[in-house]
Amino acid sequence: MANHFADRITKAIKSKNTPLVVGLDPVYDQLPEKIINHKSMNDANDAASAIDAILEFCTRVLRIAAPLVPAVKLNSAFFERYLWEGVESYYTLLAEAEELGIETIGDVKRGDIGHTCYAYADGHLKNVEMVGLEGTVTPDAITINGFAGEEGIRPFADTALQNGKGVFVWVRASNPSAAAIGDFTDAAGRAIYEVLAEQVDKIASEPQRIGSSGYSNVGMIVGGTSPAATAKLREKYPRTIFLVPGLGSQGATAADCVRFCRPDGTGALINASRSIIYAYNNPQYKSQFADNWERAIEQAILDTKKSLAEAIVAGK
Amino acid sequence: MANHFADRITKAIKSKNTPLVVGLDPVYDQLPEKIINHKSMNDANDAASAIDAILEFCTRVLRIAAPLVPAVKLNSAFFERYLWEGVESYYTLLAEAEELGIETIGDVKRGDIGHTCYAYADGHLKNVEMVGLEGTVTPDAITINGFAGEEGIRPFADTALQNGKGVFVWVRASNPSAAAIGDFTDAAGRAIYEVLAEQVDKIASEPQRIGSSGYSNVGMIVGGTSPAATAKLREKYPRTIFLVPGLGSQGATAADCVRFCRPDGTGALINASRSIIYAYNNPQYKSQFADNWERAIEQAILDTKKSLAEAIVAGK
Repeated sequence: MANHFADRITKAIKSKNTPLVVGLDPVYDQLPEKIINHKSMNDANDAASAIDAILEFCTRVLRIAAPLVPAVKLNSAFFERYLWEGVESYYTLLAEAEELGIETIGDVKRGDIGHTCYAYADGHLKNVEMVGLEGTVTPDAITINGFAGEEGIRPFADTALQNGKGVFVWVRASNPSAAAIGDFTDAAGRAIYEVLAEQVDKIASEPQRIGSSGYSNVGMIVGGTSPAATAKLREKYPRTIFLVPGLGSQGATAADCVRFCRPDGTGALINASRSIIYAYNNPQYKSQFADNWERAIEQAILDTKKSLAEAIVAGK
Repeated sequence: MANHFADRITKAIKSKNTPLVVGLDPVYDQLPEKIINHKSMNDANDAASAIDAILEFCTRVLRIAAPLVPAVKLNSAFFERYLWEGVESYYTLLAEAEELGIETIGDVKRGDIGHTCYAYADGHLKNVEMVGLEGTVTPDAITINGFAGEEGIRPFADTALQNGKGVFVWVRASNPSAAAIGDFTDAAGRAIYEVLAEQVDKIASEPQRIGSSGYSNVGMIVGGTSPAATAKLREKYPRTIFLVPGLGSQGATAADCVRFCRPDGTGALINASRSIIYAYNNPQYKSQFADNWERAIEQAILDTKKSLAEAIVAGK
């Protein structure tokens, strides 16, 4: 594999022919009955039982997703709720994903200043060589919060680059209340998300960060549900890979999301979580596949890929 | 103990007669030689050895700090760098602190939107009742990142309240580059930190959140190094407890920090990390205490308390 995150992910987008990323936000109560009825996994209030169920579910989703999409995004919160035991299972899944040859994004949204960022980067981006933890796999990229500005971004960006990895800085959220902050505008009419994007680009466009694909190892997160004006960022920052959440359950359409793809389909990763991993609860797929939950997820991935591909063509 | 975080911490500020919080940001290489020369703790590249050293050090700092200050702040990054093993040791220290009767702030700066915030809150604020993890202690309060606005704050605030705990929302960072974001100003002259503070206050001032001390379980983080104008927040938001980082190694003076205390000394928690926990490397204390590193830390705490007390009196 290419040793630059942006090159690996661009190659994967091309070979899987889609910008779709499957998001793993596993919630015990929503797992397939076949899993949570199993006697070793049927107790939501027993940490080992619940974690086993989540591991079983996510491992099977990874196997379905690996041949179909360039990357999966693991949402750390849903593992951290099981404390260190859950964190261990998060790293177990990252190793499984590496085995399967699919890129991983650790959705951890870490953010702080200076030396604290370096410590976070060590745990989340560095290739692990410590005795007792050797062989542990960290994500190919993580999400970070750039609230502290340049000093909050650079430590992550540098550690990532040294380890062939990437970071996505949260520039504009996908939820309604984000507007109160994200759209806050100065006297010259610039929104805070534009200022943050500028800060990110200053770091992202440093020559050493640009891979042979032309993209940087430092990308941006911009919600698919954000105002249409955010799509200007695509043109303004040609070296940026955008991670776009909000497709499906959060209400963004395929057309909203592909605004961040280049006409060749590269340059963006579009994440869908609940609309895919819980597809077996969707009446449309339930009637088609009954309790074959894996086929429901597979079909939801294929259908979402199709709608994104059509939206990319329509947007050209 | 009172079941409302703001009441507990206010009582502790009064009984310890200081707003000082000791921050635990443990870095292996900076630990006392007596610890890292021990044969079971002398290998920085062996996870078990390094974690044992950090646990030993932090446990002893907790014992020094417990009778002297109202709270300790554990910086999650310095535990997460040892992956799930480090996270387990973080929770071990929280249990130790509870035994010692000192309040704990988990400096995790988590932030996301909606259902992800609830999942983070479960792992970081909820009293743990899961089989296999029972008896685990979560922090008395955590730090969060309010970048996503109200929907990114309320889930944490609510879970905290239900569990007798608190949250501190990061409103203004203490590092130089934070100004690019934090001081970003609209046409009416309002800085983004003021807008964020307003968002936080909207939630913090809901009547059910206010304890008998008059303070809310939702506080704000404002760097001691931030511009003097931020001190207006103290007057504007009388129900807010401010968590103030930056004293000592980050360059804020006692006078800078006590701007956020009320004249009676309550209403703020002022954090110092490196200037206290590595006091034994400071020539001033080294010459006084030689390799008695615990006495050096104790003296640094006493000296810092004194300088804060004097600054509070001077500021009246």
